[in-house]
Amino acid sequence: MSADIVALFRRITLGVYIIGVAHETEQDAFTAAAVMQASYDPLLLALAINPKHAAYRLLHAGGSFTVSVLARNQLELARRFGASVQDHPDKMLSVSWRRGHGGTPILSDALGFFDCSVRAEHAAGDHRIVLGQVTDGALLVPAGLPLLYADTGDMDGSAALYPSRLASTTR
Amino acid sequence: MSADIVALFRRITLGVYIIGVAHETEQDAFTAAAVMQASYDPLLLALAINPKHAAYRLLHAGGSFTVSVLARNQLELARRFGASVQDHPDKMLSVSWRRGHGGTPILSDALGFFDCSVRAEHAAGDHRIVLGQVTDGALLVPAGLPLLYADTGDMDGSAALYPSRLASTTR
Repeated sequence: MSADIVALFRRITLGVYIIGVAHETEQDAFTAAAVMQASYDPLLLALAINPKHAAYRLLHAGGSFTVSVLARNQLELARRFGASVQDHPDKMLSVSWRRGHGGTPILSDALGFFDCSVRAEHAAGDHRIVLGQVTDGALLVPAGLPLLYADTGDMDGSAALYPSRLASTTR
Repeated sequence: MSADIVALFRRITLGVYIIGVAHETEQDAFTAAAVMQASYDPLLLALAINPKHAAYRLLHAGGSFTVSVLARNQLELARRFGASVQDHPDKMLSVSWRRGHGGTPILSDALGFFDCSVRAEHAAGDHRIVLGQVTDGALLVPAGLPLLYADTGDMDGSAALYPSRLASTTR
């Protein structure tokens, strides 16, 4: 990886979210940054997820997800939910949460949340783009400011995933 | 629209970009916020665009786009490129720019830029998700901070596009 390339991609501004997923008796939640609004009518959020992520199976099988928006002072929550459920099997016990319509976890202390039903999934390189229709949601802390992904440093270890140069293979 | 719903969606943190498109002798550039990284290998950016936008035709026909990242002090540029080329036919004359690999405009004063080749396009409600492979890019102002979409207020008039309530039609 190249420090310049990592610094460039950090200029794509994103927030930090805890994505809740569930299927039958299982639930999981994980930290993600790649969330944006894709459509107004219907209201769709787009989420990029690595299908090798353990939580993807629950998202795909369950067909719904929740997005809990983290506030500027919740970096510790972002870190905790960045760990896999295998490494931290009790991470759902360490926070207060309730279930969305699909049984998916919503963090009680989040700045706000969105409850989404999966409408489509598309291949996108080593990730998948999941489109979820927003069926519910609320701003829980109106005065709160969202945590910026750029302010998490390399908490997620993604810097190592960038190439050493931007290969212009298509030139 | 509901002020609460608008305020909630403003907590999805995004940046502000000038998207450059071109086809044959035509080029255009427009302000957008819905940009995120979707994949590491290959390096893909996802862009949500309304296909009714005049620039979509050039993006679709040209098969490439550039993303110029705006800095915190470039709100005026965001405003200028939010206007359609019909209303401001000379907007490309008002700034310094050069061409990316696909002939697409890159703003010289941007904080940084990405040059992308379209790899896929997917329907997403009233928008389309365009996946572009990053073939080139650079951080032009290493000390600069990116403009936040939440700090543009309702510059793009999007507040009027939200529903008055989040209809849970799928419950």
